[in-house]
Amino acid sequence: MKIPVVRNILEANDRVAAGLKEIFAAKHILVLNLMSSPGAGKTSLLEKTLGDLRGEFKMAVIEGDLQTDNDARRVAATGAQAVQINTEGGCHLSSSMVAEALKNLDIEGLDILFIENVGNLVCPAEFDVGEDFKVTLLSTTEGDDKPEKYPLMFNLSKAMVLNKIDLLPHVDFDMERAAKFARALNSDLPVFPVSCRTGEGLAAWYDWLRAARAAKA
Amino acid sequence: MKIPVVRNILEANDRVAAGLKEIFAAKHILVLNLMSSPGAGKTSLLEKTLGDLRGEFKMAVIEGDLQTDNDARRVAATGAQAVQINTEGGCHLSSSMVAEALKNLDIEGLDILFIENVGNLVCPAEFDVGEDFKVTLLSTTEGDDKPEKYPLMFNLSKAMVLNKIDLLPHVDFDMERAAKFARALNSDLPVFPVSCRTGEGLAAWYDWLRAARAAKA
Repeated sequence: MKIPVVRNILEANDRVAAGLKEIFAAKHILVLNLMSSPGAGKTSLLEKTLGDLRGEFKMAVIEGDLQTDNDARRVAATGAQAVQINTEGGCHLSSSMVAEALKNLDIEGLDILFIENVGNLVCPAEFDVGEDFKVTLLSTTEGDDKPEKYPLMFNLSKAMVLNKIDLLPHVDFDMERAAKFARALNSDLPVFPVSCRTGEGLAAWYDWLRAARAAKA
Repeated sequence: MKIPVVRNILEANDRVAAGLKEIFAAKHILVLNLMSSPGAGKTSLLEKTLGDLRGEFKMAVIEGDLQTDNDARRVAATGAQAVQINTEGGCHLSSSMVAEALKNLDIEGLDILFIENVGNLVCPAEFDVGEDFKVTLLSTTEGDDKPEKYPLMFNLSKAMVLNKIDLLPHVDFDMERAAKFARALNSDLPVFPVSCRTGEGLAAWYDWLRAARAAKA
């Protein structure tokens, strides 16, 4: 009798992710996996981006949360298509959850698909969900040591958005120090200091999105 | 041939945790498991508490982080005993990690042991590390919807510390709403609004600690 052993749960996830990448590549859709701590501002960044670039790109969002459809309702208010995944306690999205969510999205003609992962600076980094790039948000209220303390996510990301710069006068946060820790893990990492509240800095993030999108068209 | 099956990794964790609880009970040590998102202020709360109650209690700290010994060095600067656990990517502490860390602590005569878990609002809630009580921190910069979106941790906690109230004038955060969501999960949950930066509100948290400690003596 041969006992089947699933050697690596990550292998199974990667197989489904590879299938998703084929679909997205065939349709020329740029897919970004947004990750951060809870409350760093992933949904706020999406609200701004979906609103400001509405005339330029066709965009959709897959939202991941343990519970509630709060975030999908927030981004749907911008007019974008949105699907909510509830992980029911699960600490990250997986490629099979994204494959399931895709059944509820019309991806024809889509330019950009944002996948907002569960708020968690650890586990989401380990699971490919079919994205082109991972993007990590850090907020100025979390402390500038976070890239050093949670290295994998910053190491694997293709861009870092540093949110809540409007709060810099009120917190102890050194932007240079945060960027230095992140670039020690990932030397070419672009860092975009922004305030989703005031809109400051978002233009540079939009330019990066346009360039990433153009490379995929 | 009988194939051994580990039915539940949580069962194994709970067995070791039960052994730790026996040791702590025999020595009348109050043990608190501190949990929150990254950067909510667990280490800052410990720095304040260890400093302000130094004359009253003998306290020690076990710090959990993926990488670095930054936090153990911060709390050791108050004069308290501190041990750092590095989980090397692991998203929560387990009871066996705490058992291992205990070998490096002198717990004779200890009144309170704080276990600072990995910054993560999801996974740490699932693993008993031998504590009497779980305590969750939420900070005002994370959004008042977090108890609703990450329910397990708030459901299992015996106290909630609401940190960074000094930033309330600068953020959209409704304390009543956050407390309402938390108490919908956990009706008797005491909520302590504090600022570890200014010291505001800490007196009520210290009174709760004194009462919890007295019940254990």
